[in-house]
Amino acid sequence: MNKDELKYFLEQVKNEEISVDSAVEKLKELPFTEIGDYAKIDNHRALRNGYPEVIFCQGKSLEHINGIISKMLELGENNILATRASKEVYESVCKITDHAIYYDLARIIVIKRKEIIKTKKNILIMTGGTADIPVAEEAAVTAEVLGNSVERLYDVGVAGIHRLLARLDVICSANVIICVAGMEGALGSVVGGLVDVPVIAVPTSVGYGASFNGVAALLSMLNSCASGTSVVNIDNGFGAGYTASMINKLNGDD
Amino acid sequence: MNKDELKYFLEQVKNEEISVDSAVEKLKELPFTEIGDYAKIDNHRALRNGYPEVIFCQGKSLEHINGIISKMLELGENNILATRASKEVYESVCKITDHAIYYDLARIIVIKRKEIIKTKKNILIMTGGTADIPVAEEAAVTAEVLGNSVERLYDVGVAGIHRLLARLDVICSANVIICVAGMEGALGSVVGGLVDVPVIAVPTSVGYGASFNGVAALLSMLNSCASGTSVVNIDNGFGAGYTASMINKLNGDD
Amino acid sequence: MNKDELKYFLEQVKNEEISVDSAVEKLKELPFTEIGDYAKIDNHRALRNGYPEVIFCQGKSLEHINGIISKMLELGENNILATRASKEVYESVCKITDHAIYYDLARIIVIKRKEIIKTKKNILIMTGGTADIPVAEEAAVTAEVLGNSVERLYDVGVAGIHRLLARLDVICSANVIICVAGMEGALGSVVGGLVDVPVIAVPTSVGYGASFNGVAALLSMLNSCASGTSVVNIDNGFGAGYTASMINKLNGDD
Amino acid sequence: MNKDELKYFLEQVKNEEISVDSAVEKLKELPFTEIGDYAKIDNHRALRNGYPEVIFCQGKSLEHINGIISKMLELGENNILATRASKEVYESVCKITDHAIYYDLARIIVIKRKEIIKTKKNILIMTGGTADIPVAEEAAVTAEVLGNSVERLYDVGVAGIHRLLARLDVICSANVIICVAGMEGALGSVVGGLVDVPVIAVPTSVGYGASFNGVAALLSMLNSCASGTSVVNIDNGFGAGYTASMINKLNGDD
Amino acid sequence: MNKDELKYFLEQVKNEEISVDSAVEKLKELPFTEIGDYAKIDNHRALRNGYPEVIFCQGKSLEHINGIISKMLELGENNILATRASKEVYESVCKITDHAIYYDLARIIVIKRKEIIKTKKNILIMTGGTADIPVAEEAAVTAEVLGNSVERLYDVGVAGIHRLLARLDVICSANVIICVAGMEGALGSVVGGLVDVPVIAVPTSVGYGASFNGVAALLSMLNSCASGTSVVNIDNGFGAGYTASMINKLNGDD
Amino acid sequence: MNKDELKYFLEQVKNEEISVDSAVEKLKELPFTEIGDYAKIDNHRALRNGYPEVIFCQGKSLEHINGIISKMLELGENNILATRASKEVYESVCKITDHAIYYDLARIIVIKRKEIIKTKKNILIMTGGTADIPVAEEAAVTAEVLGNSVERLYDVGVAGIHRLLARLDVICSANVIICVAGMEGALGSVVGGLVDVPVIAVPTSVGYGASFNGVAALLSMLNSCASGTSVVNIDNGFGAGYTASMINKLNGDD
Amino acid sequence: MNKDELKYFLEQVKNEEISVDSAVEKLKELPFTEIGDYAKIDNHRALRNGYPEVIFCQGKSLEHINGIISKMLELGENNILATRASKEVYESVCKITDHAIYYDLARIIVIKRKEIIKTKKNILIMTGGTADIPVAEEAAVTAEVLGNSVERLYDVGVAGIHRLLARLDVICSANVIICVAGMEGALGSVVGGLVDVPVIAVPTSVGYGASFNGVAALLSMLNSCASGTSVVNIDNGFGAGYTASMINKLNGDD
Amino acid sequence: MNKDELKYFLEQVKNEEISVDSAVEKLKELPFTEIGDYAKIDNHRALRNGYPEVIFCQGKSLEHINGIISKMLELGENNILATRASKEVYESVCKITDHAIYYDLARIIVIKRKEIIKTKKNILIMTGGTADIPVAEEAAVTAEVLGNSVERLYDVGVAGIHRLLARLDVICSANVIICVAGMEGALGSVVGGLVDVPVIAVPTSVGYGASFNGVAALLSMLNSCASGTSVVNIDNGFGAGYTASMINKLNGDD
Repeated sequence: MNKDELKYFLEQVKNEEISVDSAVEKLKELPFTEIGDYAKIDNHRALRNGYPEVIFCQGKSLEHINGIISKMLELGENNILATRASKEVYESVCKITDHAIYYDLARIIVIKRKEIIKTKKNILIMTGGTADIPVAEEAAVTAEVLGNSVERLYDVGVAGIHRLLARLDVICSANVIICVAGMEGALGSVVGGLVDVPVIAVPTSVGYGASFNGVAALLSMLNSCASGTSVVNIDNGFGAGYTASMINKLNGDD
Repeated sequence: MNKDELKYFLEQVKNEEISVDSAVEKLKELPFTEIGDYAKIDNHRALRNGYPEVIFCQGKSLEHINGIISKMLELGENNILATRASKEVYESVCKITDHAIYYDLARIIVIKRKEIIKTKKNILIMTGGTADIPVAEEAAVTAEVLGNSVERLYDVGVAGIHRLLARLDVICSANVIICVAGMEGALGSVVGGLVDVPVIAVPTSVGYGASFNGVAALLSMLNSCASGTSVVNIDNGFGAGYTASMINKLNGDD
Repeated sequence: MNKDELKYFLEQVKNEEISVDSAVEKLKELPFTEIGDYAKIDNHRALRNGYPEVIFCQGKSLEHINGIISKMLELGENNILATRASKEVYESVCKITDHAIYYDLARIIVIKRKEIIKTKKNILIMTGGTADIPVAEEAAVTAEVLGNSVERLYDVGVAGIHRLLARLDVICSANVIICVAGMEGALGSVVGGLVDVPVIAVPTSVGYGASFNGVAALLSMLNSCASGTSVVNIDNGFGAGYTASMINKLNGDD
Repeated sequence: MNKDELKYFLEQVKNEEISVDSAVEKLKELPFTEIGDYAKIDNHRALRNGYPEVIFCQGKSLEHINGIISKMLELGENNILATRASKEVYESVCKITDHAIYYDLARIIVIKRKEIIKTKKNILIMTGGTADIPVAEEAAVTAEVLGNSVERLYDVGVAGIHRLLARLDVICSANVIICVAGMEGALGSVVGGLVDVPVIAVPTSVGYGASFNGVAALLSMLNSCASGTSVVNIDNGFGAGYTASMINKLNGDD
Repeated sequence: MNKDELKYFLEQVKNEEISVDSAVEKLKELPFTEIGDYAKIDNHRALRNGYPEVIFCQGKSLEHINGIISKMLELGENNILATRASKEVYESVCKITDHAIYYDLARIIVIKRKEIIKTKKNILIMTGGTADIPVAEEAAVTAEVLGNSVERLYDVGVAGIHRLLARLDVICSANVIICVAGMEGALGSVVGGLVDVPVIAVPTSVGYGASFNGVAALLSMLNSCASGTSVVNIDNGFGAGYTASMINKLNGDD
Repeated sequence: MNKDELKYFLEQVKNEEISVDSAVEKLKELPFTEIGDYAKIDNHRALRNGYPEVIFCQGKSLEHINGIISKMLELGENNILATRASKEVYESVCKITDHAIYYDLARIIVIKRKEIIKTKKNILIMTGGTADIPVAEEAAVTAEVLGNSVERLYDVGVAGIHRLLARLDVICSANVIICVAGMEGALGSVVGGLVDVPVIAVPTSVGYGASFNGVAALLSMLNSCASGTSVVNIDNGFGAGYTASMINKLNGDD
Repeated sequence: MNKDELKYFLEQVKNEEISVDSAVEKLKELPFTEIGDYAKIDNHRALRNGYPEVIFCQGKSLEHINGIISKMLELGENNILATRASKEVYESVCKITDHAIYYDLARIIVIKRKEIIKTKKNILIMTGGTADIPVAEEAAVTAEVLGNSVERLYDVGVAGIHRLLARLDVICSANVIICVAGMEGALGSVVGGLVDVPVIAVPTSVGYGASFNGVAALLSMLNSCASGTSVVNIDNGFGAGYTASMINKLNGDD
Repeated sequence: MNKDELKYFLEQVKNEEISVDSAVEKLKELPFTEIGDYAKIDNHRALRNGYPEVIFCQGKSLEHINGIISKMLELGENNILATRASKEVYESVCKITDHAIYYDLARIIVIKRKEIIKTKKNILIMTGGTADIPVAEEAAVTAEVLGNSVERLYDVGVAGIHRLLARLDVICSANVIICVAGMEGALGSVVGGLVDVPVIAVPTSVGYGASFNGVAALLSMLNSCASGTSVVNIDNGFGAGYTASMINKLNGDD
């Protein structure tokens, strides 16, 4: 409720178009829905923007997940994105809807209820190695469900720089780039130095020994000398896809 | 040199418009300039985009800094941005140019040679506390020199959430937001949950004890539950300003 | 034995109401009970205050747990609280008593032998997300068995600040607040800034990547800018519930 | 503004006792004061409770500190507590007020404008060693200015347990205890096991080598086996004093 | 393509021996092969040097591994080395070739298609204990497949220095030495001080407690006082074997 | 071979009592035995002192363990101590000897072939809690097999200091003390301050959250304020028992 | 007060040889002395054993140090050992006594008031390098003042193992050994494997980069494969000397 | 002394060409020189190979440094290399020799007494930035004094990959490469993937925030995907230069 709406609302109170009691309730009422006593769906963004509803499944019981998704199905008509969903979660969700599609590499369930219109400009998603692909796919599927055109360029790590340079055309035509890499995590720096668009770096827990489950890649990316690069949490493909989508759709490309 | 330029270039070779020897040189020649044997200026972005030349002063000797800036002054007509510049660096730079302006809170020297045209949309820069202001100013001055309209909202940390909520109008009208915070670094999460635009979180080394010079804030920001948030290095105001500028000017707002 | 009791005791020795030998034994005797050679029950608090006996089950064998609980059952009439108890422990305990109740989310067994009288004032237990609920329940059940009125407010993380603000009435009416959160752990700071009562922050190991099993939340909470906040160990719901109870019952509310 | 006040306020709007425009302003107006563009004083707690105004000086310039204190002096009549204040800060503050008192061990400036009424019950502040005293004094002065009776028991570290046991009478008569210790930080555990009142443990950066500037003591305290113990940041004497005061004054002792 | 080749190539363009279009393709074409969209084989080194093709199996699916190896088998005649290969991977690979040999301690599959000619000079591989042998064997098999004579000297840790000194003859006759050790990782320092040849130290994750899965050994090796020692990642037997081979074959010993 | 023996030996060479060739062999021959190419038994201490042979089983294959023990059985008549031995290892060892005894809490196999004569003076082994007992038993069994009288005092953690003080008589009569504790690891400091004999502190990985698998206890013990305390690796019961035995038997008590 | 003394004491109460009031005082009185409110001297060990009084100067003000030493001088006749004493502290102490001797490498002040009788058996103190000598000297002077014969063997690091082996005679004749080393800290392991006496390892903060101020050496020493080795805090020469003295004098060598 | 020399030596004893006493001495005598009681010069390598004597100055007093260098000057005729030498050290050394040359960027003093013959093949030393040059120069001067031809290629960090690719000719003609980089430390990976010669990666402490004084670069380098890369300690230019020299001169290039 912005200033103008607030003014209009208070005038309605003044004019007795709205009773004081319902005004009190209205001011207390906020845009979310309680489910049992264990969760609160945030309708905020979805209602306004046609964004999909999102549920992060890891650490939640099957009952809670199904409870939340049932409520989402009941409440609106937006698409639903369930991330960090195991096969077992998918099978459970299938019991309450016929429309769930499972992206197993990405560990994402999509329940599509609305057509998705894609942006003209691309988000490019790159990986350093083959083992980084699951995190990259989490980013890719997220970005696609959010309405972005996505291009993939996998296994182009910096230790074989010619593989990356061979695809400079693809790299230079992207509007936003997501660099997914484990081990030494240098992909973001090299790519960030080649392009003039925002780069989102995603460290992955791929590696062994002194990779410390992604810490080496994380630190490397945070210390990137390439301007225009920012970083999300280790293995956070969803966050990268979501952020890239926000950026890609800014200033009118949707 | 893209595919078409390469084709055209090779046709010139074929038609003997360019000699083989100068073609060899041309293909070897890349867009940077060597200064002594200690630095290479990267003309790449500046030439193409009217971006300012940037020099990171920390860890460089006064001689090296002046050598690099002299070359920049000689080579082009872009603005020059010298970051992490102490008062002493500024005084040294004043010996080679009359046009240097020093932003002492931001520790930035700007040598302005071209008019800066500002974007219509704002980058909002927020801080959790008063002590985070120097890093915020580094981001602010960087973004301004890069041609962005910048709004400042300082000392609105989450431990006094009403101070932040009182300015929701400013927060909700920004196109990109930079959240600068030390200590528990929760500003990014709260802001990220309130808006639908990209948020860049900058942890600062402000704090003591278990803040570990910004590590607490960094981890907090990387683990933000708010989608659309990405992170840069501790105290990296420049990186945040640069990334925010890239995002703000994407898709045509310049 | 305080100074007055000591004086009285020594006078009894002097007056030969107590023999020297039994006085020696008395001074050596301390209020705990040995069980086999593997454990010592501390009767101290329980005897004096009607506090429940507490046993931390994690890392103890079923035999040891049953041995200790048997002794507790035999020795006194207080309630018994067994924390970090798996389903398997519960089943084992059922063999020696019919009165065990299992709170599976909280992983607590309660053997109730005395009526529990509740305080008039509330301990409020809040969580940032759904996955933090088990730790919150450990705190809640602990506080309840210790005789406190407990209110729950779950899934009100700071990335959706309106969900939290919508319940300001509940938050502001609590006497002590426990904030349970993983990820960026900022709940404690925001709540601590809203209220004037003690806040106990419990970091949880919920999260992934750079959450480092609760370290990010722990550091965030230790660095809270909100005065009046203190912190317990990662996932230490019991400790939070126990401390909150001590505080809630101080100065006469029992 | 609680529910009833809100209702009353809206009825005033309805009855035209308040104009819509001033109602809009009122709803937007929140209880803090802006000083220049660098700080916001939070009048919230102070106004309501007679709490002192608090300013954390570390990392702030002398100008900013004096600016903030001037505003505090102008705005209200509460006492003012300036923590982490160097001698230099004190001398600067003396230029704007004659009433500043400097506690040099505690590094605190107090500007007393109101009589402080002490609680009947004590906060006991203990240290492991002599070098922990500055942090303990920060806690002690804070608690005293907040209106608490404070008892000090210094240099009673666990490696000489008889020194501590010799003062059991003092320890057992406290209402809240603050344990300040560096090195192995075990004081909190031992004391926590002896008493039935809340213990706030403050790790200090005292020590060398593997004390890692207080990390060893911090971890030790977080892992305390003694129930009823919670922890604040390394060297955070102010936080401990403030929290202890909140607890000590709970349920009516003021 | 070096300078001379480039000159020659451009002359061919000029002389129309090569068409502009195929020249464009040629300049864009780089020496790797794409497999599906998940991997790129790097033919670079193998083609030039008769090096074996290498595939790191950990974190790759059986399908991907077989897909990559099939392509390798099809493309060239070099030997193939598959590292971090489980028994299960081996069995899967057996379905596509009869020539796979499995070194189970080393977890390496070798598909030998060319005779391996051994160097005259030795690489010596030493371990501190018996539990370090798997990593040592990874190094040993790698070095052997790359064409080196390899000598093994196992279980000669520094806590029994006489065992090591008893074999000084073997140690002093090596051309390159690989020291594989967990726990305190001191083998590299002692050996490095005894010889005048390059020593490659490999920390292993062998140990417990404060070995932190190899961190203790890694730090110990990085801090070695013995000049001429360098270090690879924890458990990185392959990297050590590969580096040692490069060094051993330098300046003409092949 | 000491100086005198060397002199005598060289005189034998001179007098041709020993041939040059066998002298060469003798000087090269060192007191250990090779088993296959995977292990070397160190006969050194055992031969000289009647110490038991020791084998650390963790990380070794059953074949290697049996190979080493067979050789030990064949070579000498000393007792054999196999530490970190699982039940499975014990069952495997039973196939090659009838004399193996398994201490399951301590995870130790003892093959007793010689009578063990106990010291007059005691090693006292204390634990903070019940869960620390397995590590304590590893120390206890080790010390006993090495010929020491051992006393146990378990579950006397510092959070219930009276339990510990109640047994001051036992504590003060020990010759060497081993303190085994996880969590905050303060036992060593308290005990070290009470006695005048060497204290060996063993941190255990018992705990959760910020205990970081024993790091909290380790740091606490390293920072102990009590003089006379030294520390071994996390969970290293064997090392503590062995060191305590060395100390206990020093200066003639055997 | 042991059991017999307690009995005797109680009989005195009974027989009215001691009044109840003075008995109460006696039981409360413990063997330490308060100095102002900032320190408590522990007379315990000194009174009983002729041990020197010890004061750790680091982090204490000159006034406090002089206050404590004055009291020590007044109370007894034992020698006084002031560790971590700067030159400035020494000069300050000279104002209150003429008998202070300053060991500048060791940073120790000794005030000798009693003859020191040396043990027959040696403590050997070794260092890895020249830069470790100050810590070694702290251990050496401590051990000497405590009445031990001390031998020094410096700069015998493992990277030049022959330097160490050349002095096997000295090493093998020691009763207790202290190994002081920074960098990779391997000295303890090598020495521990050579001897049958207790080894105390002292990591030093000597080194740079990944030595992390002694952490590398500390971890290396904790992970030593040599039985009989225990560790003290980084740079804790005093602790090593004190522990070694306790061990050296055990079982009657004094 | 190898087997043949030992045989010959024993025959001399047998033939009484050497007396038993001097034989005893000979066997005890090892190739190093003691200086006072604080240092031992290791003549080992220098005597045999014409290697320079090396002294690491950091952490040594001026007296010790001059003492050691004086002895070196007296003992042999090799060149002397003093690393980590401040200007102050240089001035002190000038008092005992006229031949000292100071390389201030490298912080190295060279005392040249013998002609240095350079290898035909090059060691190439690269840096990521200008601030890494001091460490690179330490490596360069070390390698040159050890007799290697050295090429420098500075400021070619991966964030401007074209700067590096422009010099592929230089990179590909090196025999050994040293990559010196701070921040994200990715230079080693990119270069390692481009060449077939050994790469030694040197992390530097250049950077800020999450570079953690070189830890980010160190981890990045240890996790390099490029085979043939090994790593030395943070800022260890000397170690890199020494190792590179060993490798460069292997198999006969000297």
